[in-house]
Amino acid sequence: MTAISMYKISAPIFVQFLTSLSAVLDKAAAFAEAKKIEPSVLLNTRLAPDMFPLGRQVRAATDHAINACGRLAGAEPPTLPNSDATIPELKERIAKTIEFIKGLKPAQIDGSEDKEIKITFPSGAVREFTGQSLLLGNSLPNFYFHCTTAYDILRHCGVEVGKRDFMGTPVSL
Amino acid sequence: MTAISMYKISAPIFVQFLTSLSAVLDKAAAFAEAKKIEPSVLLNTRLAPDMFPLGRQVRAATDHAINACGRLAGAEPPTLPNSDATIPELKERIAKTIEFIKGLKPAQIDGSEDKEIKITFPSGAVREFTGQSLLLGNSLPNFYFHCTTAYDILRHCGVEVGKRDFMGTPVSL
Repeated sequence: MTAISMYKISAPIFVQFLTSLSAVLDKAAAFAEAKKIEPSVLLNTRLAPDMFPLGRQVRAATDHAINACGRLAGAEPPTLPNSDATIPELKERIAKTIEFIKGLKPAQIDGSEDKEIKITFPSGAVREFTGQSLLLGNSLPNFYFHCTTAYDILRHCGVEVGKRDFMGTPVSL
Repeated sequence: MTAISMYKISAPIFVQFLTSLSAVLDKAAAFAEAKKIEPSVLLNTRLAPDMFPLGRQVRAATDHAINACGRLAGAEPPTLPNSDATIPELKERIAKTIEFIKGLKPAQIDGSEDKEIKITFPSGAVREFTGQSLLLGNSLPNFYFHCTTAYDILRHCGVEVGKRDFMGTPVSL
């Protein structure tokens, strides 16, 4: 019996979809080069005027992943520069996020179901979570939201990616 | 200690985001009425010519939720008509999916981590999953993908919905 655990529903999932997001950005870069488009045009594309553009969607995906794992494990995540101006910068940000998550041991995250986690948001609002409510009710849905929207923006721009590129390959950690 | 379980990471999550999806469709209907747009225009909108339109995105979200819970629980889900022509039909489909999921008891889904699940896809391809690999590696990411893309299509159309509408409210089952 390989029981489900907080680690299994977080770290390998984040790594799988961050890896596929990085590969999707490679296809975006190749598309921009082939079409002689500045990659920044793609990074600044939004689906609606009041939604984040692609670059910020990718940044948000990494933020949710790195903060969730850091908080569950009680480990300080590395400070990543808030830079999303180029595709290489975004890929570097994703790589550092994956590196941090892979460096956490299952025992650091497992058992964090009831851990009390208090988060002060940039607005000043404070919310209290358990490990479980943070991961299931906040981090994972937001992570999937931003990964999907990044992919949707690129599909909308005509980049030839498909569902398999979004899904990537399950990882064993 | 309220340990994480297969039920907790599936049923309440599906119900939360299906409920919010239904409410987002209400806002889409109100938008169409206010702008004197046929709702079918929204339902047929796609982000790319080779992506599913809104109606089919909603259908796919319900399919992933109902099939995942049915397979984990070993319960036959109700057959839902493959109809996605109107917003009321889609809302009815969502309501029936929620009703089915709410009817399952935690004990039916908990412990299904290693359950062998063989799925024959419409293409004829057969894939073997464990309960865990089906839920984490297939059903949940696809569910979130289709919910997010449905939301993204409506944002792109100008419907005034925000992230809170996507997130909805956590449910206790």
